[in-house]
Parts: sequence; C-alpha cells; structure tokens
Amino acid sequence: MPSDYTGNYDLERDFKNIWHPCTQMREHESAPLLLIEKGDGVYLIDRDGKRYIDVISSWWVNIFGHNHPRLNKALKDQLDQMAHVMFAGITHSPAINLAESLVKLTPSNLTKVFFSDNGSTSVEIALKMSLQYWKQVGENQRTKFVYLSGSYHGETLGALSVCGINLFREKFKNVLMENLEVQGPDCYRCPYDLKPESCKAECFEHLEKALEKNRGTVAGVIVEPLVQGASGMKMYSPVYLEKLQEACEAYEVHTVYDEVAVGFGRTGSLFVCDSRGLKPTFLCLSKGITSGYLPLAATLTSDQIYQAFYGEPASMNLFIHSHSYSANPLACACANETLSLLTKNNFLENMKPKIKFLKEAGSSLSEIKWCGEFRQIGMIAAIELVQDQLSKDAFPLKDRVGYKVYLEGLKRGVFMRPLGDVIYFIPPLIITNEEIEIMMNAAFESIEAVLG
Amino acid sequence: MPSDYTGNYDLERDFKNIWHPCTQMREHESAPLLLIEKGDGVYLIDRDGKRYIDVISSWWVNIFGHNHPRLNKALKDQLDQMAHVMFAGITHSPAINLAESLVKLTPSNLTKVFFSDNGSTSVEIALKMSLQYWKQVGENQRTKFVYLSGSYHGETLGALSVCGINLFREKFKNVLMENLEVQGPDCYRCPYDLKPESCKAECFEHLEKALEKNRGTVAGVIVEPLVQGASGMKMYSPVYLEKLQEACEAYEVHTVYDEVAVGFGRTGSLFVCDSRGLKPTFLCLSKGITSGYLPLAATLTSDQIYQAFYGEPASMNLFIHSHSYSANPLACACANETLSLLTKNNFLENMKPKIKFLKEAGSSLSEIKWCGEFRQIGMIAAIELVQDQLSKDAFPLKDRVGYKVYLEGLKRGVFMRPLGDVIYFIPPLIITNEEIEIMMNAAFESIEAVLG
Repeated sequence: MPSDYTGNYDLERDFKNIWHPCTQMREHESAPLLLIEKGDGVYLIDRDGKRYIDVISSWWVNIFGHNHPRLNKALKDQLDQMAHVMFAGITHSPAINLAESLVKLTPSNLTKVFFSDNGSTSVEIALKMSLQYWKQVGENQRTKFVYLSGSYHGETLGALSVCGINLFREKFKNVLMENLEVQGPDCYRCPYDLKPESCKAECFEHLEKALEKNRGTVAGVIVEPLVQGASGMKMYSPVYLEKLQEACEAYEVHTVYDEVAVGFGRTGSLFVCDSRGLKPTFLCLSKGITSGYLPLAATLTSDQIYQAFYGEPASMNLFIHSHSYSANPLACACANETLSLLTKNNFLENMKPKIKFLKEAGSSLSEIKWCGEFRQIGMIAAIELVQDQLSKDAFPLKDRVGYKVYLEGLKRGVFMRPLGDVIYFIPPLIITNEEIEIMMNAAFESIEAVLG
Repeated sequence: MPSDYTGNYDLERDFKNIWHPCTQMREHESAPLLLIEKGDGVYLIDRDGKRYIDVISSWWVNIFGHNHPRLNKALKDQLDQMAHVMFAGITHSPAINLAESLVKLTPSNLTKVFFSDNGSTSVEIALKMSLQYWKQVGENQRTKFVYLSGSYHGETLGALSVCGINLFREKFKNVLMENLEVQGPDCYRCPYDLKPESCKAECFEHLEKALEKNRGTVAGVIVEPLVQGASGMKMYSPVYLEKLQEACEAYEVHTVYDEVAVGFGRTGSLFVCDSRGLKPTFLCLSKGITSGYLPLAATLTSDQIYQAFYGEPASMNLFIHSHSYSANPLACACANETLSLLTKNNFLENMKPKIKFLKEAGSSLSEIKWCGEFRQIGMIAAIELVQDQLSKDAFPLKDRVGYKVYLEGLKRGVFMRPLGDVIYFIPPLIITNEEIEIMMNAAFESIEAVLG
C-alpha cells in the first residue's frame, strides 16, 4: 500500500481492489489517484472541493459538460419509462429516433444502424460485417484489412489486429488476425518534406501500392479520418481521404471510417465524412454519442451490405452478432438529446469563433522552446514536445516529460493526460473562451515547470 | 417495407433504419417487432398497453424486474453527482464500493477488479491478461486456449475464437485465433449413457487429454460453469468443474470462468465458483451485474496475475487496455444497489421455495409428448423439444418449431426467445409463483398449439 494512501480510506480500498485501465498501477504508489465526486460543466470536483478542468473530456467522450440539465432530464425521463429491454424481436422509441437521426445526419449511402456498447465493438462489427459480406457474395479470399501505421481502433483482439501502434499490439502479435499495415500520414515529420499548404497527400502511394499488390484479397481499409488520436492527435490532410475513396472504389474494397473519436462535433463539423462529401462503407461511432454519459456505439452501413444478409431464414445469411445491452434505452435517450443539442440553435456554426480562439490561445504554446509542433483542427489541439526543434528528436522515454507535465497540471487544476510527450486538448465543446485561456495558461506553466 | 407496418409510423422507421442484433431482418416482414414502451416488474408493456412476461429477462440481464424503485433511485442519485468520468488517473466511490463488494463476494484468490462494458470485453480482457502474463513470466509458447464444444463467450473476434458453437464462428473461422476445442459435457445425449445421479464427469477425459497433449502451450481453459447458455441451457455436473480445477492446477494453466450468464443469483447462489469452493484464475461478470439496467462488466483476477504487470514504468509490463466508459459511475451505482438487494434480507435463501416451485411447475412440461428433457438449476429452466423421445432426434430445422412456439407465446403474453427448439425460462428473480404459473401455462399452451 502506498504510504500516501494511509488514512484515506477510499484510496486505500481502490488500491487494494481495482486494476485501472491503461495504467501502470505502481505509478499510484507515488501519485495518488484523483478521487472525483462531482462534475459541473467542464469541471471535475474532488472530495475536497478542488476543481479540475476536464481537458480531455474524460477520454474524449464528454461534449456538453458534466451535469448538463437537459441530458440529466432526458435520462431521468427515460428511466421512468424503462431502463432497458432486449433488442432482438423488440424495439423501442429511443432507438428508433436515434437510428433515424443518425441516418439523416450521415452520408446518404449509410442507411442502416447496428447498435453496440463501445468503440471496440463498433469496429469489430464493421470488420465482421465486411468479412461475412465478402463470403456471402462469393469472394471468400477477401479476408484482410489494410490499416495505417499510427492508427488505433480499440483493443479487443479483432480491433487490435488493425492497430498500427506497436505499444498496444506488441504483446499479442502472435495471436492477432493477419492484416496489412501500411505507412500512414506523418505530417510533422513528413518524409516528402511537404508543407500542409502544398501537400497533395503524396504519402497515399503506400496505401495505393498495398491495394494493387493485394488485389482481390483485401476486404477493406480502416482509417481514423483526419486525426489519429491515440498516436498523439496526429492530423492529416482531407486529400488523403479523397484519394482513399477513389482507390477503394477502383479496387472495390470497403472503407471503414472510425469516427469514434472525431465524431459529434469535435472537428467543428458533426461527422468528418459527411462534411467532406465522403461515403464510407461503414461508419463507427461511440464516445461522444451520449455526450459522455453512458456507453453506446453504432456501426452504420449501406443498403448494399445489408441486402447481402437479408433473405430466407434457411439461408443462414443473417448477421449473428449481439450484445446484451444493444441499443440500451437510457443511452439512446442521452444520444437523442446530444444530437438535439448539437443540431439545434446553430450550435456548430456558433462554435466557429471558439475554434478560432482555441487556435490562437494554443498558438502561444508554439513559443515554448520545446514545441515541435502545435496542431489543431476544430476543438482538438495538441502540442508535441521535442528536445530539439530542428532535428525534431523526441525526449528520451526515461525522461517522462509528458507524465511530469501531467503531474504539474494537476497542481494547477487541469486534468490532462498526455500521449507520450504530446500534450493535447479536446475539451467539452461548451468550454468558454475564458476557460480555454485558463486551460492553456495552466498547460504553458506546467510545461515550463518541467522543462525550465 | 412489410405491408403489416404500413401506418405504424414507428415500426416503419425501425424497419427502414435499424439492423437488429442476431436477427434475420426478413423475419420482420411477417412478424412485426414488439414496440415496447414501458417496463413494470416482470412485465414488458407495449404501446397498446398489452403486457408480456419478460421470460428471458431481456437476454438474461434483468434480476429485480423493470422499473425497480430502489434501482431507479440509486441511478438518479448518482446522476445528480456525476454521470461519468474517465477511469485512468481518476477514481470514484461507486467503482470503489463495487470492486470491494465483488472481491468480498467471490473466491478468496480473486483480489483485483478490471472494469469494462460487456460480456465480450470481459472475456477479451481475461484472454489478453492470460496471454500477457505468460509472456511476462517467460512462457511465450503458452498462446492457446482450450474451450468446450457448445460454449459461448461473446462475439468480438477474440471471444469468438473460444466459441464452441459452429453457428457463431463458421463465417469467421479463417480469421480466428487458433485455439483448441474439446468435446464438452452433453448430459441429455450422454455418450457414456450415464445418469446425473451416477455421473462422475467421465467426459472430462477429453479435456484432460487435450491438456496432456498440449502441455506447455496452453495458456488457459475457459468455461461457462454449470450451464452452457447459448447452446440451449445445457446443464452439467459440478464434478466436471472440480476435475477442471485439479487438472488446471496440475498442468499449471489458467482457468477462466465466464459467469456472465450464471452470475448474480441465477443458479440460486450468487456465483457458481464461490458456492462450490472453486478458485478460477479469472472470473468474467456482466449481464445481471446492473440488474439489467446498464452495460457494465468486470474481470476479476488474482494477485499472482496482477503482480506480473506491476512494476517500473520503464518495464512496460502494464496492461494497456481500456474502454472509454470503464467503470461508468451510473452503471456502478446500479451494480451496487443490485448487490445490496441480492445480499441483504436473505434474498437468495428466501428464493429457495420459489426455485422448488419453478422446478415443479416446469415439470408439467415433461408430460408433453415432444419433451426430450426438462432441465433446471436455480432459476433457470429449459425444455428441449424433440420429434422422438426415444431416439432424441431433433425436429428438422426447416420446421422451425422453436420459432413457432415463440410466435404463439407472443399471443399469450409471454416473450420467450427459444434457442433452436429449446424453450427456456430465465425470468427476473423477483417473479412470483403466480407469475411462474402463468408463464409455464402459456409455454405449455404455445407448444401444444404448434405441435398439436
């Protein structure tokens, strides 16, 4: 038991009984966990009343802040009707309304919604639907997915098999389904030495070559459109996505858009695909879908896919996949209210000045001597810290720069959780300019405190 | 659009936009979905006010009935504090209390709780922890799991790789991780011709042989203790589990108990493992954990496993797995109230006469000419319909007996959902004797109506 915990009965019990996700538990011998008791707008409040800005929206899920009166009411109203009912043989209004809204708000080719519980399952479902589709149209040999280096699509073993970050897959590589990794965009360290303004996504050639070389055996290509989140909020050009669309059409392979992180307004538009006129075969959604209240996910697809599963019961062409809590009514109620808040009163249009403000406020971080790159799209911003701006060399892992910045942030009332040495900001969309300023100043001071 | 749907605006919108789980959507051309609006105790209520007994607890999740005042209150109270917060670097009372309770109520070797969202992820986490454990203690070659024919552990691709039901895995077999299927118990059609009273789990020899033959390359064995749910509520002797424990100790492999379906009182005791004095390495829980309100899952494990991941940050021995909504506070609040209801006022002790009543009421189904077997354990009962009691031959698939019984049940106010021709009952534990009688009578009549 960490000595710091003695006397804090709840933290003692946590340390004794809980294994936290994505955490080296030994860290908490020296850095106690935050014991959060309440939420209020962009703030998390601990037991002593100390307030922290939820800089990363509780793992990129929160959209309208904590304890939002309309979301709370929507959830309570649904609870008074029914918390949950199974979703085979049965349906309910919260799911019907949500599915209709999602179909309306996403590209016109996406007409069917399949519900599940989290981002990983939404991806597993897309992969499984794609594989079964090819089997059922007689193309058995299409069993491989192409994914990009730097990509992250969840950590169940199927989702992990299309993960392009070694850190996540390394320990399991000998049991993962064999897929094809290709070099993805890497704009900060562009191997073509291009600038964003002149880039024509030259790096797409790697993906093009993979499709050419594996013609007829690829089921689909999976991407996180515009922002590769887990690898450090790496951002890339929409031209890449346009080329992807053309290539996938040419090679007749599916495109899977994983908008789990970027969907629901994060980039300034509701969904990346729709705002760019792109038409993926599958669209995976989760995280912000309930504005960070409850687990829920959706995989959208086209009528062409759906029809390959539609037939006589004896054909056994159905998609035999289910999760007990599929389309949970409470979660659907939160999602319906989330979409209502996002699409009414020009919410996204009115967010534009705030995006500009975030960009400007964040740019001050560029002045830091160790700022390799400040990047931003919509309400997502990130600063990549490097030990040398010219060489772009990263700090040695053992220096733990990002982790130290995180600890400094806690002292200053901001809960950040850097990805390596990338300090990033993906706050609830309702954050005010004043709060953005507080957040950026705290980040600035935290970095300075660590790097001197 | 099915002609029946015309004019029913909501069902039209459902059919247009939703792809339901584990469903041949074409079925709903002739059999409209139930549009459920409210829940009340064991009843589901449709828009016209018609009431259906939720015979299968909405996919085996509901424990205390729909709209339970104490569960509703627990959820609303937590909502007034905070709906959700991320679970890395942060903790909260609902999770701390839940983890402590789970550790107390499960076998003494299980000391750590890792949260996720559903049964599939709880299994994926157990498999991944097992694999990474072996890697980190230097036994890289232990990469295979042994699973039983007839087993079901979820449908994400990792969980599906330990599924012993062809129906679920067939279309994906060429991409699944290679594991070892062994012949599991099949008591109704026992190849050894044994009776339950004399059985010493002779069929365990298959598993024993597999462990012997694959010595040193098996990571673990995964089972659904006592009841194989998805393959038709197939029940087997606890002697099998005792032998399993001995064998896993002898061969030094992990045991993964998937109590997703049987946990939380279904078999008459809180957990199968604890009630039988068994000590699995991993215990997977979900479904009833929130009494059917919200998605939540937990994977419990031992200190021995935990310690292999505990170390210096630089060792990179941590378990890098996460889901955004891990330990969702709302779901944890429901789970805490569920455990409080289950463990106080002698709830399980008082359930014993009801279990006896279920057994007796269900036994009347044995009188049906097509009853191959009536089986029951705790509050789970099932009747397997066959065309010939002597030969035990199943009805031809094309007769769709189970499906027709389901449709007849709907007319009689019971929502059943047979597994093939196995009609089963896994109602909310708070069902009354009177309701059990109504349910069983309706089932009896439905079977008679189909089979004449």
